[in-house]
Amino acid sequence: MDMTRELERIVLVRHVEGLPRPSDFRIERAPIPPLAEGQFLIANRFVSCDPGTRSRLSPGASYARPVMPGEPVDGFCIGHVVESRNPAFPEGALVTATGWASHVVSSGRGYVRRLPPSDLPLSLRLGVLGIPGLTAWFALHRVAMLKPGERVLITSAAGPVGATAGQLARTLGADTVIGTAGGPEKCRWLVETAGFTHALDYKASDFEARFAEVAAGGIDVMLDNVGSTMIEAALPHMRTHGRIVLSGATADYSADVAPGVTRLRELITRRLRMEGILVFDDLPQFPEAEAGLAAAVRAGLAYREEIFEGLHALPEAFCGLFTGLSFGRRLVRLPA
Amino acid sequence: MDMTRELERIVLVRHVEGLPRPSDFRIERAPIPPLAEGQFLIANRFVSCDPGTRSRLSPGASYARPVMPGEPVDGFCIGHVVESRNPAFPEGALVTATGWASHVVSSGRGYVRRLPPSDLPLSLRLGVLGIPGLTAWFALHRVAMLKPGERVLITSAAGPVGATAGQLARTLGADTVIGTAGGPEKCRWLVETAGFTHALDYKASDFEARFAEVAAGGIDVMLDNVGSTMIEAALPHMRTHGRIVLSGATADYSADVAPGVTRLRELITRRLRMEGILVFDDLPQFPEAEAGLAAAVRAGLAYREEIFEGLHALPEAFCGLFTGLSFGRRLVRLPA
Repeated sequence: MDMTRELERIVLVRHVEGLPRPSDFRIERAPIPPLAEGQFLIANRFVSCDPGTRSRLSPGASYARPVMPGEPVDGFCIGHVVESRNPAFPEGALVTATGWASHVVSSGRGYVRRLPPSDLPLSLRLGVLGIPGLTAWFALHRVAMLKPGERVLITSAAGPVGATAGQLARTLGADTVIGTAGGPEKCRWLVETAGFTHALDYKASDFEARFAEVAAGGIDVMLDNVGSTMIEAALPHMRTHGRIVLSGATADYSADVAPGVTRLRELITRRLRMEGILVFDDLPQFPEAEAGLAAAVRAGLAYREEIFEGLHALPEAFCGLFTGLSFGRRLVRLPA
Repeated sequence: MDMTRELERIVLVRHVEGLPRPSDFRIERAPIPPLAEGQFLIANRFVSCDPGTRSRLSPGASYARPVMPGEPVDGFCIGHVVESRNPAFPEGALVTATGWASHVVSSGRGYVRRLPPSDLPLSLRLGVLGIPGLTAWFALHRVAMLKPGERVLITSAAGPVGATAGQLARTLGADTVIGTAGGPEKCRWLVETAGFTHALDYKASDFEARFAEVAAGGIDVMLDNVGSTMIEAALPHMRTHGRIVLSGATADYSADVAPGVTRLRELITRRLRMEGILVFDDLPQFPEAEAGLAAAVRAGLAYREEIFEGLHALPEAFCGLFTGLSFGRRLVRLPA
């Protein structure tokens, strides 16, 4: 065994205040330790940029332990086992795990899953077939329990969760799918490629007027990835027995105090249900959902990827999630 | 038929701004019209004061059409049919309906139910066996799906919904039941008579400290009747997969804009469900719940009533709901 081998990983320089900046991170090299019994070594091919990671970069801001300065940062990753002392994860196995790093030494604890091979592109296993796609799937199937004929609002719709959810909603028989996104290019893609009924540009000066106009037809299911301001805006348009699924709060993550939602009384008058989703609660059902998502992709479900090259590109790629620059699933490809 | 007979009813003088005042209402006499085919006349014995009525006394503040100045105001009522041209509601039948009035002419539409006789006091059919008790029942059984061993927080706990819910929660196996109420007398009653584990006086100077201390053990189910400020206070203490049931927002009804809730992100990190209840959605299940509530009362479930005499006492009794003066179910008894 080569004792001098090293991995590369992203480390937090300082706790993030407000919007994350690339200088909040650095890349470091570290030795790969010899494997203990039960461990295996994954050589990553892709790592992902996830908005939810932001919530762990400030102290006390999340359910999970915050990352401390000097510690490695996590994101989702996928690669192959290149060395193994664990028979459940043999050499050559395809594995998804967490780590913003070239290599991950794992004992199989935490979020580490061996995936069956597929002829679909590997990157999709971190996107439309991975955590974002699964979040969209369970948001509609388990939490919202979307019914045919319903009207759906999806915020951050050009993101990988929103874009997948909007198309799945169509296949489930939604009558109308409204998406919000930043800029005309994303809005055009949502309508022309992803089949949304309406796409509203939140950066446009007439956004509020257009939102009020389109939402006036009523909303049965809202899937939100933005946060307080969009929830507040949608509440007066919710139909009786509507469901609001919260899968992220990208706009609130960088705020010390989120804007307040003043209209929660609508939950009583309209008997609404508002519920947060964390997709890992659905882990036992992942294989079934992955099969459903793969079938949808083969049937033409559209997706977008933005693939950056090399781990050094990760900090800037991640920070762009919060300034509206991203369009689709942001991944970093690592050399084979 | 006596063509000169009259009823008495409460009429709205002006739309209410902020806290309702007795002068916002007046009592008027009106002729009782001859009954059309299918109609029947109820002579009321009790009418009730319900916080939810407030939301219809200002324009545009509720799901239901607001009451306009000069129009009669509704509350729940119970009485006997004294004249009938409807075989489903024969003379002598016990009927609950809506109307702040001595008599109600009904055709059976809207919330009008014939009730089976019972040896329990008639007033309870508007209280622990009526809408407040049913709200508590379905809040715990259908919405919260309370499980044995869970910890429960009930705001406005000395009110008829809260007091009933706290005791039902105990019978369902709740580990801890925390109530909030205004003043030491109510808090003493909650612990000593209604069996709450803790009762916290929101008017006391140490309320926030005591709340933080007691809630620190975690909350699985919150039943709220107060509104935004209590939701905001409870969110950081909710346990994973907790449920927040909103059955009223007494503190928000009189505010032009409710205080904002800034902590909705907790719904994602803790996978909480927040849901409003309007008990009429459960109408088909009322008989089963009424039987369960009657059994609980016979088994010793405690309740409090504040009974005022005569329709002229109603405006002041109602307004007291919003200044913390009420303690238990507020009813007005009408002469037989």
